[in-house]
This record gives sequence, C-alpha cells and structure tokens, in this order.
Amino acid sequence: MDFDCLFNAQLDTLKEEGNYRIFAELERKCGAFPKAKSHDEDCPDEVTVWCSNDYLGMGQHPKVIQSMQNAVAENGCGAGGTRNISGTNHQHKLLEAELADLHGKESALLFTSGYVSNWAALSTLGSRLPDAVILSDELNHASMIEGIRHSRANKVIWKHNDPEDLDRKLAALPSNATKIVAFESVYSMDGDICPMKEIVEVAEKHGAMTYLDEVHAVGMYGPRGGGVSEREGLADRITLIEGTLGKAFGVMGGYITGSEAMCDFVRSFASGFIFTTALPPAVAAAARTSIRHLKESRVERDAQKAQVAHLRKRLNDYGIPHLENPSHIIPVMIKDPVKCRMLADILMQDYGIYVQPINYPTVPKGTERLRFTPGPLHTDADIEHLVQALATLWKQCAIAHQVA
Amino acid sequence: MDFDCLFNAQLDTLKEEGNYRIFAELERKCGAFPKAKSHDEDCPDEVTVWCSNDYLGMGQHPKVIQSMQNAVAENGCGAGGTRNISGTNHQHKLLEAELADLHGKESALLFTSGYVSNWAALSTLGSRLPDAVILSDELNHASMIEGIRHSRANKVIWKHNDPEDLDRKLAALPSNATKIVAFESVYSMDGDICPMKEIVEVAEKHGAMTYLDEVHAVGMYGPRGGGVSEREGLADRITLIEGTLGKAFGVMGGYITGSEAMCDFVRSFASGFIFTTALPPAVAAAARTSIRHLKESRVERDAQKAQVAHLRKRLNDYGIPHLENPSHIIPVMIKDPVKCRMLADILMQDYGIYVQPINYPTVPKGTERLRFTPGPLHTDADIEHLVQALATLWKQCAIAHQVA
Repeated sequence: MDFDCLFNAQLDTLKEEGNYRIFAELERKCGAFPKAKSHDEDCPDEVTVWCSNDYLGMGQHPKVIQSMQNAVAENGCGAGGTRNISGTNHQHKLLEAELADLHGKESALLFTSGYVSNWAALSTLGSRLPDAVILSDELNHASMIEGIRHSRANKVIWKHNDPEDLDRKLAALPSNATKIVAFESVYSMDGDICPMKEIVEVAEKHGAMTYLDEVHAVGMYGPRGGGVSEREGLADRITLIEGTLGKAFGVMGGYITGSEAMCDFVRSFASGFIFTTALPPAVAAAARTSIRHLKESRVERDAQKAQVAHLRKRLNDYGIPHLENPSHIIPVMIKDPVKCRMLADILMQDYGIYVQPINYPTVPKGTERLRFTPGPLHTDADIEHLVQALATLWKQCAIAHQVA
Repeated sequence: MDFDCLFNAQLDTLKEEGNYRIFAELERKCGAFPKAKSHDEDCPDEVTVWCSNDYLGMGQHPKVIQSMQNAVAENGCGAGGTRNISGTNHQHKLLEAELADLHGKESALLFTSGYVSNWAALSTLGSRLPDAVILSDELNHASMIEGIRHSRANKVIWKHNDPEDLDRKLAALPSNATKIVAFESVYSMDGDICPMKEIVEVAEKHGAMTYLDEVHAVGMYGPRGGGVSEREGLADRITLIEGTLGKAFGVMGGYITGSEAMCDFVRSFASGFIFTTALPPAVAAAARTSIRHLKESRVERDAQKAQVAHLRKRLNDYGIPHLENPSHIIPVMIKDPVKCRMLADILMQDYGIYVQPINYPTVPKGTERLRFTPGPLHTDADIEHLVQALATLWKQCAIAHQVA
C-alpha cells in the first residue's frame, strides 16, 4: 500500500495554502549570538537572528557554558534512566530546589520540556482530580490545550484576558466541581500580558485553583526573574507556576512549582513524567547556573528593555506598523502567509536578517506575522540595519497600507 | 480551598499499596560508571548501578564526552527556539541524516525524547490518516498508549507478540481502513523480543503500515546497532522505526525514521514536534558521535553480551529465579510491591547495590520485580558481589520458594 500518497496529499494542501514550513538551518556560534552561520543556499554566510527565544543570550553566557562543560566532565552525557529507574541525579534535585526558591514555592518538579510539563501536569490534574473542570484562556499555548484535551476533563474556554468572562463562567459551574483556571502571563505571539491580579481574585472568589504558564516571562520579569507573578507580588496566591529552562534561561527543559503535595502528586501519576529519560545532568547544571545568575543580575534584563524600546521607537519613526504591548515581543502583522514568507525570504537573502514567518498553526490563519525579539546582544547598528531594511521593503512593496 | 488534601488522599492510597515511589538520588561520576555516588542517607557513599538504561556506558565514552563539550564551546547551551523558529541547528540536520542512514531510511525526524516521539507520531498518524485503525500490542509502552489514546483513532489491542491474533484482528477490519500495526522489538520489562518477521508478513498481507519501537534495541542489536530490525534484515519492510538517543546511545532525545513524505508529514502536523524547543545542539552532537561509534565498534556489544550471559549463569548456579529471554534484560520476579522495595533497600543499604524496585504503573500489580541490566563496564567482581548478596538474601528471607 502506498502510504506516501496519503502523506503527500495533506502536505500538498499545506503548500497550496502557503503554510508549508521551511526551517532555516543555522549554526549558533558561541560568543557571536545573535549572529549565526547559515547553512541555507541563497543566504549570506552570516545572519542576525531576530526571532530567538534565547531572549537574554544566556545560552552563550560564559558561566552557563562553563557549568555545562564541567558537568559533562563530571557526570557524563545522559542521565541513564527515568527519574525512578536510576535517572535522578544530584543536579536534578539541586535544580528543583532552585526553581522552588525562584517562585517562593515549597517544591518543584522537572520535565524534559516546557511542552511536556504543561501537557503532563494538566492532563494529570484534569484526569485525576474529582469532578475537574479546566477553565482555559482561549489563547493558551498548544501544550496546555493538548494536556487539557488528553485529561478528558470538562473544559470551559473563557475570553482572552477577560476576568469578567472568567467570573461568569466560574459562577455557572456546580459547587462540587474542582475548578482549575489555566492561563499564561506573557502570550508569546501578541506579546500581551494578562491582568493577573484580577484573574487571581476571580479564581479565589470561586475557590478555583490557578495554573499559570510563565514560560515567556521567567528570567525576564520580576526583580529575580521570577516572572510576572513575582513582579506583581502574586506568586504566593497562585497554585501552580509552570516555566521553561529553554527560553530566557537559554538551555532546555520545563518545570512546575507549587505545594509539596501537588508536585508529589504529579510526580507520582503523570505518565509524561514517569516514563521518560531524565534531563542530562549537565543540562540541569547549566540551567541552574543561568537561573542563579539572573536572580542576582539585572544587567541583561535592563539592556534588553532598552533595545526593545529602541526598536519600537525606530519602527515608529519609519511608520512600520507593529502591535503595541507591554512585553519584549514585537509583532509586525502581515496577515497573509505567502507575503509573510516572501518578506522573510527577502530579509534573509538580501539583508542577512533572519526572522521566521509565523504562520498557521502557530497563529490563526489571516494573522500571519513577523515576530521580533530584540535582546541585550543586539547592537544599535543591528537595529538600524533591520529598520532600514524594513523601511526599504515597505516602500518598495507598498504594503504598509495593506497591513496597517 | 485546600487542594493539598485532594492530592494527599491519592498519595496515601499509593503508600498503603506499597506503590509510592522513592527516587534514589545519585551522582553519576564520569569514568566510574556503573559506580555512582549516592546522596541518600542510610546508603553507602558509593553504589553500583544495576538498573541503568545507559546499557553500554556510552554516556561516559570519551569520544561522546568530548563531542558534547566541543559543541557546547562552539554552539552554546540551548537551541534557542522551536525547530521552526530559529531552533534548527546544523547539528540537528547532521543527526537526522545519521539516523536515516542507521535504519536505511530516506529520512528521520528528531524529538525531545523517545516518549514524545511515540506520543507525537502516533497521535498525528492516528488522527490525520483517513479511517485510521491502530492495532496495538497489549504490552506496548505508555508513550505509545498515550499517543494512540490522544489520536482518538479506533484502537484494536492484539495479544502480546501473537501474529496469529494480529492476523485475525486485521482480517476483521473494513477494507477502507488505514491500518497501523504498532509494536516493539525488545519489551523492556520482560526482556522478550517480538517475532518480527511474522508480524511484518501479517501486516503486509493486510496492507497495513508497521510502526516499530526499537528504543531498547538501537545501538545494541544488529551489526551497526540498527536494532533487531537490522539484525533480522527487516528494516526496509517496516514503515516507521522509532528509537531513542537516551538509552544505549547514552544521551537524550527520540526520533522516527521512514520515508521522506512520512517524516515531513509528522514534522508538519505533530503538535509535540512543532511547539517545543529543539534539543540543544550539543546533545545532538554527542548523540551523533555515539551512533557513529556504535556503527563501527562491536566491542561494547560483545562485552555486554558476555556479562549478561555471565550473570545469568551465576544466578542459575545459586538457584535465583529469573525470567528467561533472548535480550540483555534480566528480570528477577518478586511479585509483591512491599517485598520488592524491601529487597531493593537491603541491597542498597547493606551491599551498595542499586537496583530500583519496579512496581505499578510501570508493570502490572502483582508482577513487581528487580530488573538487572548488566553492561560492558560491570566487572566479574561486580557480578560476583551481586550474586552473593542475592544468594544471602534468598537464604535469609526464604523467599525463593514464594517467588519461583
């Protein structure tokens, strides 16, 4: 039987829609970030990465590099097993203690990725708590959606960042339900930040558990990088804070923090935690070094904020439309997958500027965009080069009016 | 609301059943494996690990260590993004080419773990192929079960390693169904190996796709470590071969291999692939070095086989009952969670022998066991120490007759 024809039929549809994805093949160069070597034909040898989630450049911080190399030398490469079967390394325990401290919680639990932490924690809470109902912000990340779906708990979608809608929907639930309000702090595609205090207060009013995804905020917001919940002084009122080690912390992995009983519960019942090889000890060591550094150092956060503000100002100077938001993410809306890809290709090929076109299913069809994430290692000259390139393209293509 | 009481109620049940898990906290020491430092009270400082899935000790192989350290120095720590958004590194592409070559396939696709590769690939195939029916061996791994469940495709369970039952169940399906036969080569808890040729022939007879999990076999079986499918000369007749980089290859990550169209299909539609940070380039580099080494070198496999046979013989000499099987896994059945934990505790505390008690949900209740995985780095003296300890315990506790 020719299975390839089944696969190709669906791939052809993607291609016709302009939603087929082509990955840029890069070679990160330690010490050179945000510059990277490109391995794609038709591209300059060196490009500037403008869409990384290594928001603060910690993936190449000398202390983090050194920590990872030392741990490889001391502990070897892999963990050698699941957490239960010989895979729990001292480095995992140290990192979990560091994460609990970061969010002011009793306990933390590591996962192989942020995706798995959301999927495993939500599917375990939703499937095992009695009469669970998960109230999910309509723009929650795919990992949360899949976790909720997998739990087969009752699900209620509330309007994005709308505490009043949440209030109404909580009020309509039976009193015996175990209510879990799931939401994010920074939504990564629009860069908006939730009204956290209002959401927490609504949840408290209805006796609901709060499940907060801070993956785009940890390391970045709050005096110690504890996320928006730290900055707003709300961490102790949130039941579960989930985060990642793969974005601002520059390494890999995910985690949840909360009460000791809750972390123990997820540890004991979550299939996606139990049946998977633990993170390499060296990954855990590097992540811990990064977290510790960002608890003490504001240099990276301050420099990033300055460059975000600088890019925004220069985009305004040239009339290049971008979504206003209070975060570090600058989306330039194109609203067409083919145009979005075309602009990204020209930027890459003619200007050495790498920004991935963001298309379906990462964002809804019709909201395609270029998403810029300036960091502390982007120079003023990098910003000027980007803005001049965009200004030229906007003029040439006369697309400003179409996308404004 | 006191959520902790909800969590504690279910944890208490686990504890009463003897199924509450306590992780051994180890510190792997590069160059000393299978010895490790223990961080647990009441345990000797140094223990010998007898239950690692770093089957060949590649996690501390000098070439693999060097490769990981070099890549950290060259590329930094993390990938910095999802594969689509700045996270595809040259090292990922090299590794995918290496994996395709290992299994003689057109293409390969990397995932953050073996768990995620099974979950994401099966849920994508099952949910997107028209009229899909997944025929799943009854002892398939949790990651496959969860992937099938998540796909919401029709599922048919066939008797473990029974091609005749599979034949009957395939024959009963409607002709328009897209049939996917999902099975493993080495089943890790009993150590049995599937009748692969018979299964493949039954699948071919019915025009079914074959999905083979080789996670406990890659690096270990076949002249180049391509798994049981390589050893049996069947790889080219299997639609999809899934494997891990976290066991015999000693690092972390998972993958699928197959036709270019199939890998592109999963790449384009699998949520668990798309929405997650890519593996660190250094993890990919280390895994590739390990694979390349084991393609050329038989030393590790031969030494492992010798030590597996040696331990089996000595267990027989002392009348310690263990499951006969054709693989590298030696299960000693205890069949009671409390006794299993007690024996493991005594081995650890009194003899410095670390073997994790395997209990529910990893194995069905009533089939609790100690599972030994001798490797090329276990010395004859290590084996003798283990056998003497078990012999003493068997005599003292007079449990031999109860568990035989």
